[in-house]
Amino acid sequence: MRTTTGWQLDGGTLRRAPLERRDLRADDVAVRVDYCGVCHSDLHAIHSHPAEGAGPLVPGHEFTGVVSEVGPEVTRFVPGDAVAVGNIVDSCGACDMCLRGQENFCATFPTLTYGGTDRVDGTVTLGGYSREHVVREGFVYPLPDGLDPAAAAPLLCAGVTVWEPLRALGVGPGSRVAVAGLGGLGHLAVRLAVALGAETTVVSRTPDKAADAGRLGAHSTVLSTDETQMATARGRFDVVIDTVAVPHDLAPYLGLLRLDGTLSLLGHLGAVDLQVMDLLVGRKRLMSAGSGGRPATAELLEFCATHGVVADVEVLPSAAVDEALRRLERGDVRYRLVLDLADLDRRP
Amino acid sequence: MRTTTGWQLDGGTLRRAPLERRDLRADDVAVRVDYCGVCHSDLHAIHSHPAEGAGPLVPGHEFTGVVSEVGPEVTRFVPGDAVAVGNIVDSCGACDMCLRGQENFCATFPTLTYGGTDRVDGTVTLGGYSREHVVREGFVYPLPDGLDPAAAAPLLCAGVTVWEPLRALGVGPGSRVAVAGLGGLGHLAVRLAVALGAETTVVSRTPDKAADAGRLGAHSTVLSTDETQMATARGRFDVVIDTVAVPHDLAPYLGLLRLDGTLSLLGHLGAVDLQVMDLLVGRKRLMSAGSGGRPATAELLEFCATHGVVADVEVLPSAAVDEALRRLERGDVRYRLVLDLADLDRRP
Repeated sequence: MRTTTGWQLDGGTLRRAPLERRDLRADDVAVRVDYCGVCHSDLHAIHSHPAEGAGPLVPGHEFTGVVSEVGPEVTRFVPGDAVAVGNIVDSCGACDMCLRGQENFCATFPTLTYGGTDRVDGTVTLGGYSREHVVREGFVYPLPDGLDPAAAAPLLCAGVTVWEPLRALGVGPGSRVAVAGLGGLGHLAVRLAVALGAETTVVSRTPDKAADAGRLGAHSTVLSTDETQMATARGRFDVVIDTVAVPHDLAPYLGLLRLDGTLSLLGHLGAVDLQVMDLLVGRKRLMSAGSGGRPATAELLEFCATHGVVADVEVLPSAAVDEALRRLERGDVRYRLVLDLADLDRRP
Repeated sequence: MRTTTGWQLDGGTLRRAPLERRDLRADDVAVRVDYCGVCHSDLHAIHSHPAEGAGPLVPGHEFTGVVSEVGPEVTRFVPGDAVAVGNIVDSCGACDMCLRGQENFCATFPTLTYGGTDRVDGTVTLGGYSREHVVREGFVYPLPDGLDPAAAAPLLCAGVTVWEPLRALGVGPGSRVAVAGLGGLGHLAVRLAVALGAETTVVSRTPDKAADAGRLGAHSTVLSTDETQMATARGRFDVVIDTVAVPHDLAPYLGLLRLDGTLSLLGHLGAVDLQVMDLLVGRKRLMSAGSGGRPATAELLEFCATHGVVADVEVLPSAAVDEALRRLERGDVRYRLVLDLADLDRRP
């Protein structure tokens, strides 16, 4: 086994701990993790992790780093390559979804980057809040030149989650896109929609986030708490990307859509109450999406390199992980916190 | 005023009564109503009609007949023309939806064929359970040669309601369509999807309706009460047309969809409980639709004439309207009851 260091849940708190990584299989890539984004999923995993009887938890599923070693059958990477890894590290490779490049919807469920079960040895996967990860070659992506590795890390989860619906809905020049909620997902949705050529509007209940929208490239803003502004915006958009992370009434957002428009729910993934009439009038669609397949992830990274799109990040030493999670929980983030794992090379 | 006869709600029962129709305006067409379909909306209107304080109720919003007289500015019709009228008889004509030919979504709400308010004189509109209707020319459709007027009547509401999503979703050769629920809407959805070239499957919980599906042109059937059949059908369809008229769990129908597939809710239009994860996995869409605009209605009638598509109807004399409504209420219809209004010419 290989040994590394990471932040593992222990008695409700993430503590620095030695971790084991598997010896490289023929198609494995060992990645030195440099930067890992702090995602809402990480908070959720920590809060829902049972005190007893569960496997170890090391969060983190959007990270960038450098290849440190490769297995004998690896052809696409050599040590020293800049790479990125997202929220899945394996899938069956044989089902219809995998064959269509949507490994995120693998019929046997994809192997998650943390909290998953390795398909070969049955161990629990440990995430990117650690100095090294070992990943099958097929789930490692080259990090294109010109993308800052810290600011690119959130592209691997938050980025691809908004990229998939934008692409599935054919957003491009001539599209009118509203992005509701300006957080980790929302700010990347704005940047990507703008880079795709769409007329892009931020819908936010926070006046100073609305003010920030222009800096992110948005063409206009709508304060969702202002009834006049919301009324003026009714029926204007082809696509609404809803990244609001708490339960909320969908009717105001459906009201923003034009004929045949689509509301894409990405923030709150629980149960929703829906009045069919709010869909019927205007023949509207409701959809959702979650992370992405391998082709879309690779496409996103190339697109971001071409268009200079990265996340707005604040980089903290990984030892500040507790503070990072507390700030994420209270919404004190503009717009993504990223852990710098280099401090794990030093003695604590 | 013109006088005619119809079936008007009176003390909870539809009774034969003399009705007034307006004198023809310049752009009005007087239609002798020959056949009027009995729609679930009619039942709903009767049940929800308040005993006091409401205007008169004469149901009926899918009918065919013959032009008896035209106003001086009418250019498209002459007396003797076979025509059809659906569930809307006017709209603002100026809003974005009207300009796009979606008068059914008129921003000022379209004028309904019954229970609406006439835009000129403010009277309550009275529907097609009557021997004559007076309608603005723009909302009267030529009934193409070759369409049986009784069997064509349900195309004007049930037909266009299923036509709109089939067209909006681009159903055609190569599409795989499932139709859930085989009633007035469902059986027309099957015939239209088949005529559009789609591989079409009926999903029903009634074994003998499943047996009927082949006669309607369906290529296969799935018994929704059979877990094995439902499991085999998972992930197979691009489109599910859900015409089930009572509240029901959407998850089994969403499970039938392929990647990027769409579930179109047409039967039950109230509140639905939805788990976003059931949409997320497979990046699925939920939509609805209701009746249709003028271009789609005209297109549907031409398509049906070309492809020989009409409803399976049972024609009853209009004096049997109570029996028709009771049978509809208990689901004893295969697949649409149509009133023959000719008996209103005779003394009761």
